Amino acid sequence: MKEYFPSIPKIKYEGAASDNPLAYKFYNPEEVIAGKKMKDQLRFSAAYWHTICAAGSDMFGAATADKTFGNTDPMDLAKAKAYAFFEIIDKLGIEFFAFHDRDIAPEGTTLSESNKNLDVMVDLFESLMKEYDKKLLWGTANMFNNPRYMHGAGTSCNADVFAYAAAQAKKAIEVSVRLNASGYTFWGGREGYDTLLNTNMGLEVDNMARFLKLTTEYGRSIGFKGAYYIEPKPKEPTKHQYDFDAATVIGFLRKYGLDMKLNLEANHGTLATHTFQHELRVARTEGFFGSVDANTGDLLLGWDTDQFPNDVYDTTLALYEIIKAGGFTTGGLNFDSKARRASFKPEDVFISHIMGMDSMALGLRFADKLIKDGRIDKFVEERYASYSSGIGKKIVNGTVTIQELEKYALEQGDVKTNQSGRQEYLEGVINQVLFG
Amino acid sequence: MKEYFPSIPKIKYEGAASDNPLAYKFYNPEEVIAGKKMKDQLRFSAAYWHTICAAGSDMFGAATADKTFGNTDPMDLAKAKAYAFFEIIDKLGIEFFAFHDRDIAPEGTTLSESNKNLDVMVDLFESLMKEYDKKLLWGTANMFNNPRYMHGAGTSCNADVFAYAAAQAKKAIEVSVRLNASGYTFWGGREGYDTLLNTNMGLEVDNMARFLKLTTEYGRSIGFKGAYYIEPKPKEPTKHQYDFDAATVIGFLRKYGLDMKLNLEANHGTLATHTFQHELRVARTEGFFGSVDANTGDLLLGWDTDQFPNDVYDTTLALYEIIKAGGFTTGGLNFDSKARRASFKPEDVFISHIMGMDSMALGLRFADKLIKDGRIDKFVEERYASYSSGIGKKIVNGTVTIQELEKYALEQGDVKTNQSGRQEYLEGVINQVLFG
Amino acid sequence: MKEYFPSIPKIKYEGAASDNPLAYKFYNPEEVIAGKKMKDQLRFSAAYWHTICAAGSDMFGAATADKTFGNTDPMDLAKAKAYAFFEIIDKLGIEFFAFHDRDIAPEGTTLSESNKNLDVMVDLFESLMKEYDKKLLWGTANMFNNPRYMHGAGTSCNADVFAYAAAQAKKAIEVSVRLNASGYTFWGGREGYDTLLNTNMGLEVDNMARFLKLTTEYGRSIGFKGAYYIEPKPKEPTKHQYDFDAATVIGFLRKYGLDMKLNLEANHGTLATHTFQHELRVARTEGFFGSVDANTGDLLLGWDTDQFPNDVYDTTLALYEIIKAGGFTTGGLNFDSKARRASFKPEDVFISHIMGMDSMALGLRFADKLIKDGRIDKFVEERYASYSSGIGKKIVNGTVTIQELEKYALEQGDVKTNQSGRQEYLEGVINQVLFG
Amino acid sequence: MKEYFPSIPKIKYEGAASDNPLAYKFYNPEEVIAGKKMKDQLRFSAAYWHTICAAGSDMFGAATADKTFGNTDPMDLAKAKAYAFFEIIDKLGIEFFAFHDRDIAPEGTTLSESNKNLDVMVDLFESLMKEYDKKLLWGTANMFNNPRYMHGAGTSCNADVFAYAAAQAKKAIEVSVRLNASGYTFWGGREGYDTLLNTNMGLEVDNMARFLKLTTEYGRSIGFKGAYYIEPKPKEPTKHQYDFDAATVIGFLRKYGLDMKLNLEANHGTLATHTFQHELRVARTEGFFGSVDANTGDLLLGWDTDQFPNDVYDTTLALYEIIKAGGFTTGGLNFDSKARRASFKPEDVFISHIMGMDSMALGLRFADKLIKDGRIDKFVEERYASYSSGIGKKIVNGTVTIQELEKYALEQGDVKTNQSGRQEYLEGVINQVLFG
Ligand SMILES: [Co+2]
Ligand SMILES: [Co+2]
Ligand SMILES: [Co+2]
Ligand SMILES: [Co+2]
Ligand SMILES: [Co+2]
Ligand SMILES: [Co+2]
Ligand SMILES: [Co+2]
Ligand SMILES: [Co+2]
Repeated sequence: MKEYFPSIPKIKYEGAASDNPLAYKFYNPEEVIAGKKMKDQLRFSAAYWHTICAAGSDMFGAATADKTFGNTDPMDLAKAKAYAFFEIIDKLGIEFFAFHDRDIAPEGTTLSESNKNLDVMVDLFESLMKEYDKKLLWGTANMFNNPRYMHGAGTSCNADVFAYAAAQAKKAIEVSVRLNASGYTFWGGREGYDTLLNTNMGLEVDNMARFLKLTTEYGRSIGFKGAYYIEPKPKEPTKHQYDFDAATVIGFLRKYGLDMKLNLEANHGTLATHTFQHELRVARTEGFFGSVDANTGDLLLGWDTDQFPNDVYDTTLALYEIIKAGGFTTGGLNFDSKARRASFKPEDVFISHIMGMDSMALGLRFADKLIKDGRIDKFVEERYASYSSGIGKKIVNGTVTIQELEKYALEQGDVKTNQSGRQEYLEGVINQVLFG
Repeated sequence: MKEYFPSIPKIKYEGAASDNPLAYKFYNPEEVIAGKKMKDQLRFSAAYWHTICAAGSDMFGAATADKTFGNTDPMDLAKAKAYAFFEIIDKLGIEFFAFHDRDIAPEGTTLSESNKNLDVMVDLFESLMKEYDKKLLWGTANMFNNPRYMHGAGTSCNADVFAYAAAQAKKAIEVSVRLNASGYTFWGGREGYDTLLNTNMGLEVDNMARFLKLTTEYGRSIGFKGAYYIEPKPKEPTKHQYDFDAATVIGFLRKYGLDMKLNLEANHGTLATHTFQHELRVARTEGFFGSVDANTGDLLLGWDTDQFPNDVYDTTLALYEIIKAGGFTTGGLNFDSKARRASFKPEDVFISHIMGMDSMALGLRFADKLIKDGRIDKFVEERYASYSSGIGKKIVNGTVTIQELEKYALEQGDVKTNQSGRQEYLEGVINQVLFG
Repeated sequence: MKEYFPSIPKIKYEGAASDNPLAYKFYNPEEVIAGKKMKDQLRFSAAYWHTICAAGSDMFGAATADKTFGNTDPMDLAKAKAYAFFEIIDKLGIEFFAFHDRDIAPEGTTLSESNKNLDVMVDLFESLMKEYDKKLLWGTANMFNNPRYMHGAGTSCNADVFAYAAAQAKKAIEVSVRLNASGYTFWGGREGYDTLLNTNMGLEVDNMARFLKLTTEYGRSIGFKGAYYIEPKPKEPTKHQYDFDAATVIGFLRKYGLDMKLNLEANHGTLATHTFQHELRVARTEGFFGSVDANTGDLLLGWDTDQFPNDVYDTTLALYEIIKAGGFTTGGLNFDSKARRASFKPEDVFISHIMGMDSMALGLRFADKLIKDGRIDKFVEERYASYSSGIGKKIVNGTVTIQELEKYALEQGDVKTNQSGRQEYLEGVINQVLFG
Repeated sequence: MKEYFPSIPKIKYEGAASDNPLAYKFYNPEEVIAGKKMKDQLRFSAAYWHTICAAGSDMFGAATADKTFGNTDPMDLAKAKAYAFFEIIDKLGIEFFAFHDRDIAPEGTTLSESNKNLDVMVDLFESLMKEYDKKLLWGTANMFNNPRYMHGAGTSCNADVFAYAAAQAKKAIEVSVRLNASGYTFWGGREGYDTLLNTNMGLEVDNMARFLKLTTEYGRSIGFKGAYYIEPKPKEPTKHQYDFDAATVIGFLRKYGLDMKLNLEANHGTLATHTFQHELRVARTEGFFGSVDANTGDLLLGWDTDQFPNDVYDTTLALYEIIKAGGFTTGGLNFDSKARRASFKPEDVFISHIMGMDSMALGLRFADKLIKDGRIDKFVEERYASYSSGIGKKIVNGTVTIQELEKYALEQGDVKTNQSGRQEYLEGVINQVLFG
């Protein structure tokens, strides 16, 4: 079989002292951290779209990279990309991947044609997954790129589009089931509005629920056993996306009784002005932790940069939350990250993944170290100790009356028992764990 | 009785041609718009705290205005402020007001003392309300200023503080009931966190629900018939406030089964990166519309500026939503707005309210004109027409199957029926209504 | 000649009562405001790129509009677009236009080919400009789209790129001179950095100055009499663009002694957290006012939305600054605005321009009314009156000593003479002018 | 002498393995890094205002800490704070400090009284500085807190205020000279505007220059040999502060010919949407590097949080710039940082400084390691190699003509020589240096 990246070897762990850009410094797949091998804790996944489709175009510039491998015919190109992609994740040692239907097979002029193209590619994927022993973390349908989705997909003002989107999602779910996906994701890039002036919000949100009900129930009916995820994003390309953040989506899922989890992307959280840790904390606290799109944004830029994660504070606190949530079951760390437009060479695809994987690996190492260190968790436990006895216990048990509370407070006169929140001390502990 | 603002007359409506800063140009209380007198549509309320307590201090500077009226003794000062305040709202013709408990009476060294001071002032308020025929839109407890609340009130890590807060809220509710308040508000300024490193989010949010349950049930038990409101704010002074925005609060209220509405403040919405219209749309769509804190922020500044509303686009679209929600029942337009630090003269208190009230009045006039004009509503209705028949109707009725949708889409091939969203046309209609 | 928009008539002024989307409600070209016809005050210009090239693609979606007019061959397409564009601006009654070199002619495989294609199109433009009596407000070179500019053009780390960019700009200047452009603009979309880790800022900024010196001097040497403009933008697509805002560019121009003015775009100003009025105020105060890219962004979105301007507060205050600056000489109001992706129909091109032009027209009407009203200007004049006599005059004259100032202050003891800033009063005046 | 913090010992370096919150883990004052002892590289300074004056009040809450030490009389309080402060910096081993005039002595009812109080305190400071061997990094005048400065100080619309401010600054400079300050700083907290509606920007900015000229020339005339600094901040408390960022201030200083450097605060840079490293890079590139206010903001919060710096990426890249700038001469690392409102205990003052100092120490260690590692600097050097020979050298020398460049480009045809920007590789190097 043709080798697409002949100059790139299998990427191995060489340790922190290596200056080989094509080796892992911190990610050692077989090393056991917090009871599992790193590869099984992290469950790295590559995003088909960024890795082998996206070639560097942005709002002000054309593609910089060449990912055509000399092909022009759409189906030839699709197949070449598939071969190239599996070679990439094989060399990187990434076990999982995620795709949109329209990433892997060209759209036809009709839905029927699109489905046919997809079937051809799914056959190829099935064999490549077997050959390379790779797993589909989740599949999804791209219901945002095609102009028909300009007003939304499940939230479109045009019922013809709702129908088309349902049909497209039906097919994408079938494909995901066929390929044994652990999950299926909905990112509603066009499920929002551009202006309230032309928007019936109530109908759109109800329709979004109807859409999700139809599609998710269908998947279960054909044997899908994995997790369904909604991936929040507050805006972009819409002015307002209904799945604004973790809390909003959780409220939505509960309102409509939809059995779905969250796929949380770091950059989407920060666009909603939440830290990545915050979104993960909300998810695990409310019982909606599912999967993660690992990347980072730039907090000084107001758009989705989808950079490979490089800030180990972020990755450490993220892995802390993930470990506390019990770790991934169906989910994983999917790199919804793209190399920078100026990082256009083939080796940059590998270098960028290596950097991101090393960042997440460091996050895992330090999250484990942080938990074992114990000072943070202990501080938190002690901070709330007053709820484990006396009036606090009655409050938590729900047995206290407001009259009791008033009596207690009047006797106290005022509160003299507050302790310092010790934020700087805790930040110092973090630095000690990272750099000590 | 002493006149506190002898140079300020009763503010009257003089019409758009008047250049008298102490007259209304657009707010004509008795004029009927959309079926009600303007004063009854708008139900203006003055915020006791900004109007007569706040004197211009900010994070970098001391107070600029003098609202002591020559008093130093705390109770004398409290009484003077009460007299001055009622004179202000009488001259402005504002029928409602809102206060925090700690606005109207000085805190004592113990809760018991504070309660006594409050009782004295409530007696005075009762008589002033009767004399001036003024109504309490809502009362609330200030559970954010005192250092005891540094870690939260109902969300404090210290059960002693939870108890004290419950006692304080109990008293504030009793006071509000005694003064026939239409509502009672919770703005959780300290109900959030500064760092996740020392925060047990699950316990804090559960406790917040416990707190609200205890206090709101208590109010009902003593005969409170008004509406309870939560006022969202995403942050400030906390890094993250749990009541982040309308959608988050709605999800919270539903999760815990709390019967409360929303009091939406414009500046708080924009700090969560939502337009004021958006938050109102969410509230009315989900059935949580309650009351409004009318002000504006500055979208290029990242803190709560609490400016008097001056942008008539914002006020028009806000009143559009309010009218569509059926208008206020228990709620009103409370000016949670303060004159700028540099607008420190006594007349600025009046001038700023006049400007804000004229802005809201223009908003009402134009919202009514917009609805009567009909083009926006008609466009929206037509935009979603495909859901009133055929496959769209089946979707909305919940009778369609995914197989039917697929069959429909395969037959269509692709969607050719999208229409323009006409955003620019609609924006042009807005301008035509405002300026035509 | 073929008519490209047969359903669109010549757009006429019909007045504020008209409900014809294809007529001006407020823009009356021949009406005299502030001493000049509206068309001569406003000097509207259409942006070739948004009007006839851009077709609605965004970061998450393909084009929605069809602006190919059935052509596939690049040169045929280029010519069709030219005819279509001139028909558009003729029907809209827009006298000026602006273009990038690469908007009007397809790039070839070599610079030589690109230049040839450009020559062909410039011949056509010359004849169309004559036929329709249209003028080129400014030309510019697109030195950001092609992958060769990935690291910058004049700031590229690669001298080959500097050379190519200089050659491309040389040609674009020649073309602009040939077409009698009033101006020539530099928007450095790639003149910035993505990460400081790989950036030599000092060299890049010096090179940017060298580039501008070479190109602008060349233009003068071949007879260019118009104005050169730098168009600031703080970021996007770069992480940091060197021409961050008006103040930064002015400092740069002075440091390197470059004779250039500013072309200020509203959306770029707000991305740098400045109001449009602020940037214009800086420009006219420092003597760098030149031209304007009229559009608006969305202050709650962190990217360049390039919407048609619709906020009449913004347009009024902008026209206020423009009138105060003496109005346009070489510059004009260039609509660097694109119809929304969902406004994809041919008529939306017209409707969106009409809305933007009406917004600017309202801004002109109200700016004139505001100046004639006089209250704002009078307030400002009085506010600084203390600098017209006494110690203030000495300060301004530069004749005061610090010892005199100290003596004066010690005698005063403290300052008792501050007046209110009356911000709310002034905001009320604005509303009275707009809505009275 | 009374010991104010009897439970706090002298803080020593104990190394990374220590879990003593009152010891340095990474800051070893005597250790030599990059050719100097850490204490001389870093030149830590404590901010008098945050350390011993500020007690936790914010916009929504009263002070939480008690820094009165039982004193009520203003002068007794001032003296107690002085003793307490010197004990703090002595125990922390911080050699430098900075203050505002109004931090160290209470304001009187007249300027004369204020000056007298200041003289008394300066006597005390002189003796305490001698006793503890501490140095004044810089002094400054607080011309933003007092209500007289509501419209500005040097930019006030009221000439009486300009005079007062000049007198106040004159005194503060005299005091700074007397105490042998290495520098004198101007942070124009009120030198900006709240609304353009009442602002004459040209006059205000000219007056600001006049003010700085008068005051800085005065200082030189009385023997001040240190550096003058302007500290940029883009806004807050103003809507727009004229000293917006490093680039704006540099342009201002050059325009008016003022011999001043920059004092750059991290949180102020991020409020202007620049990284801390960016502002330092601009300063050193343009030759205006002076001093640093070391802190951090929160990029998801839009106000000046003034937190102690804890992000070692930020401190590393900051120290990298500082080392590259040649290190501090007159300047230092002044902690313009305050403990969180909830960190209200006396030990938190120490713990927060320890955390901040350890963060900066780590930054120094890693900046040195990064420079010694050499990969980043080498990559940058190679990236721009094309400007060291051939056409690139001619460009930089200023000897190339645009015709030569065109000829060169036409011969090339297009550019094939771009290399990858390798951003991810470089980010990986950073992580390797920090965590390897
Ligand atoms: Co993303
Ligand atoms: Co994603
Ligand atoms: Co507010
Ligand atoms: Co409020
Ligand atoms: Co733009
Ligand atoms: Co532009
Ligand atoms: Co600061
Ligand atoms: Co500072």
